[in-house]
Amino acid sequence: MAYAAGGGKRLRGFLALEGARLCGVAERNALWPAAAIEAVHAYSLVHDDLPCMDDDDLRRGQPTVHVKWDEATAVLAGDALQSAAFEMLLRPECHPEAEVRADLALSLARAAGAAGMVRGQALDIAAESADVPLTLDEIETLQAAKTGALFGWAAEAGARMARADTAPFRDYASALGLAFQIADDVLDVEGDTAKAGKRLQKDAEAGKATFVSLLGVAGARERAEELVERACDAVAPFGDAAGTLKALARFVISRES
Amino acid sequence: MAYAAGGGKRLRGFLALEGARLCGVAERNALWPAAAIEAVHAYSLVHDDLPCMDDDDLRRGQPTVHVKWDEATAVLAGDALQSAAFEMLLRPECHPEAEVRADLALSLARAAGAAGMVRGQALDIAAESADVPLTLDEIETLQAAKTGALFGWAAEAGARMARADTAPFRDYASALGLAFQIADDVLDVEGDTAKAGKRLQKDAEAGKATFVSLLGVAGARERAEELVERACDAVAPFGDAAGTLKALARFVISRES
Repeated sequence: MAYAAGGGKRLRGFLALEGARLCGVAERNALWPAAAIEAVHAYSLVHDDLPCMDDDDLRRGQPTVHVKWDEATAVLAGDALQSAAFEMLLRPECHPEAEVRADLALSLARAAGAAGMVRGQALDIAAESADVPLTLDEIETLQAAKTGALFGWAAEAGARMARADTAPFRDYASALGLAFQIADDVLDVEGDTAKAGKRLQKDAEAGKATFVSLLGVAGARERAEELVERACDAVAPFGDAAGTLKALARFVISRES
Repeated sequence: MAYAAGGGKRLRGFLALEGARLCGVAERNALWPAAAIEAVHAYSLVHDDLPCMDDDDLRRGQPTVHVKWDEATAVLAGDALQSAAFEMLLRPECHPEAEVRADLALSLARAAGAAGMVRGQALDIAAESADVPLTLDEIETLQAAKTGALFGWAAEAGARMARADTAPFRDYASALGLAFQIADDVLDVEGDTAKAGKRLQKDAEAGKATFVSLLGVAGARERAEELVERACDAVAPFGDAAGTLKALARFVISRES
């Protein structure tokens, strides 16, 4: 599978392209939401790596932006990437209908903002200083905002462009996002820093509740596998055409980075 | 004048409302771009006040966000405010036509992003560590990006909503923005911290080239007055209806905060 050969990077952009393909959207149009979601994800990583947030110095096997340049540049680069994401969706080349462009951009603003990804980040920070570790329900709520909102947007973008039903893609992405996060927790405990391209075992060091600390490694793997099945069921109506999305879901829990 | 009585705050939102009024746009619609530009401005202030940027602890007479809360919260609050700005412009309540909403949001993305405000901030940071102080032309280029792009967007928003000519508003805002920045430099040297609600005399301490360091206080005031005349001329075709915009331009160079 070409995606896996790429090392599992650019997952959100890939989701956008694949969802669009299933809805019959031309690739030259689908590339815009794919690039936009990667820009939002990149902005969130650059800000998340800052010393005042997660304080990471390695990302995708390279020095993080504030290490390579400086903190002010990292703040500004993230800010500019967010603006760039909206610009990409709103360019006439993205889609001939302004109604569709406005819908893509409005839904991204909601998925990325205070009710979506930023809320997830804030909940995550609050969890670090909480007296009591989070429960499983609370972690799922946190992850649905932090990761799930952008996964959902990416998977649905093609359906929005084709004015098709977004529900199968939303269900697929919500299960995939949670499986992805569980796999991330497993990787954090069992992974290899060189392959992952980022610092690992941070959560255990910080004493944070994770899917692994609550379910154990075996329990977490089992839950991830159930979620992958749920994701595959959600896109079953597309039949063989959804083969890549199904393979992607399976890949997400077997990846090493 | 009601605006001046408010202490000169929310200038960009006020510009958006006044430009919209001149173009016959209903206030219930104009409030959305006015709120959106204030959200972008607020995000830029929250990030600009961070220790890694300007490191300010006082803003609008109150502790800055990272002082009152913490740095991570300030990064996230700024990020969420940027998303919120696009959400406001793209809501159907903002304007009945999706074409207009998409145009407002696309132009804001360009004014705020790497070719606009963020570029101005980056140039400003680069200027601080440059071996040679900036020339007058370089400072004007920097300020056109840092302040001018958002002033221009605010003043033009009403014309975009009414599908009217944006040129008079763009010319007005470009002169006003520069006059505003010159007045800011004068205020930085001669102002009163209590009235300004922020720390002053930072530029002189940092040895930065400013309009005042290059033109002297009297020369800077004279240049600001010329710019105010140019701003008033730009909206002269609107006759008496542009009285408030003209008064605003004069107010900008006489303000104490």
